[in-house]
Amino acid sequence: MDDREYEQLLQYAKQFSGVTEDMENTLQGLYERVKPHMAEVTDSFYTVLLDIPKAEPFLIDRLDALKETHNRWMESVFSGPFELDYVKAMYRVGDVHVKAELPVEFMAGSMALITTRLHQLLGTIFKDEPEKLIESVSAVNSILGFTLMVMQQSYESSRLAEELEKFLKITGMSRTLFDNLASAYKE
Amino acid sequence: MDDREYEQLLQYAKQFSGVTEDMENTLQGLYERVKPHMAEVTDSFYTVLLDIPKAEPFLIDRLDALKETHNRWMESVFSGPFELDYVKAMYRVGDVHVKAELPVEFMAGSMALITTRLHQLLGTIFKDEPEKLIESVSAVNSILGFTLMVMQQSYESSRLAEELEKFLKITGMSRTLFDNLASAYKE
Repeated sequence: MDDREYEQLLQYAKQFSGVTEDMENTLQGLYERVKPHMAEVTDSFYTVLLDIPKAEPFLIDRLDALKETHNRWMESVFSGPFELDYVKAMYRVGDVHVKAELPVEFMAGSMALITTRLHQLLGTIFKDEPEKLIESVSAVNSILGFTLMVMQQSYESSRLAEELEKFLKITGMSRTLFDNLASAYKE
Repeated sequence: MDDREYEQLLQYAKQFSGVTEDMENTLQGLYERVKPHMAEVTDSFYTVLLDIPKAEPFLIDRLDALKETHNRWMESVFSGPFELDYVKAMYRVGDVHVKAELPVEFMAGSMALITTRLHQLLGTIFKDEPEKLIESVSAVNSILGFTLMVMQQSYESSRLAEELEKFLKITGMSRTLFDNLASAYKE
């Protein structure tokens, strides 16, 4: 994808998931208060994952590295900016998930899990300020929804590309022959 | 899929997205208070979607029917139970999205949008009860994350099946020949 396409994806995913400028400011304003608890959120996230038989094999040998990446990403969620660089990085994550053969539903499940953990943390931080609580909870939810949209687009396009490669290998067909057939094909 | 597989998916997706029995009870307890506002949530959801050029063509001719389905689904979110029937129904939704040629990221975007709308509604309902607020916000988030996981699994499996059909049409290859080649194939 070129920068123009990333820019379109950025605007489209923000609009769809309901991200507003206020939300981006809200998240940045939370950084100092959330930062001391980020490692706990990450640990509790991986504790749940390790308990899931389908997820455990993907984690066991690289847990420390994964946690580090996860913490860095969480820092970016509470510091922004949610512009081209963020979209490009998250788009890469979808592709990396395909290369690592992670099942598609891991992304949605993980986001639900992290969102709930962050909500519970915000519930502690703002236990006497319901207005701030709902403002920050909505901001977290929308930004993570936006992030998930971006990851899933690249997951799907990588997954379909991989599937075509598999078909070509199975049938022994060359890419050139397939491309020629595809361009000549009429429904 | 048979009932055993649906049952496995149910348990797996609940565990992954962090759904607890308490959350299911919380949602049922919210039904009476949320019910009078469901139509507003649905309307505001479709108002955002109609404003997105990529989404609008899928909606314009069938808005009333979509809203009705959406309201019925929201009723089920606040009444449960989140058992086999719910999983089967949500699994069908992923498949229907593929048949309707809806882009994969619509599901995640829509869930983010609806979750944020529901959070804002809960923020109004529990504006003086931060503890109940965070409890209900987390329950909504986890159940919708669980729902999204189920939808995405079927979306992907339908999408890949469709991709194989497309490949067979383009190459003029029979399904039997492809299946034979696939079973004889060694990496």
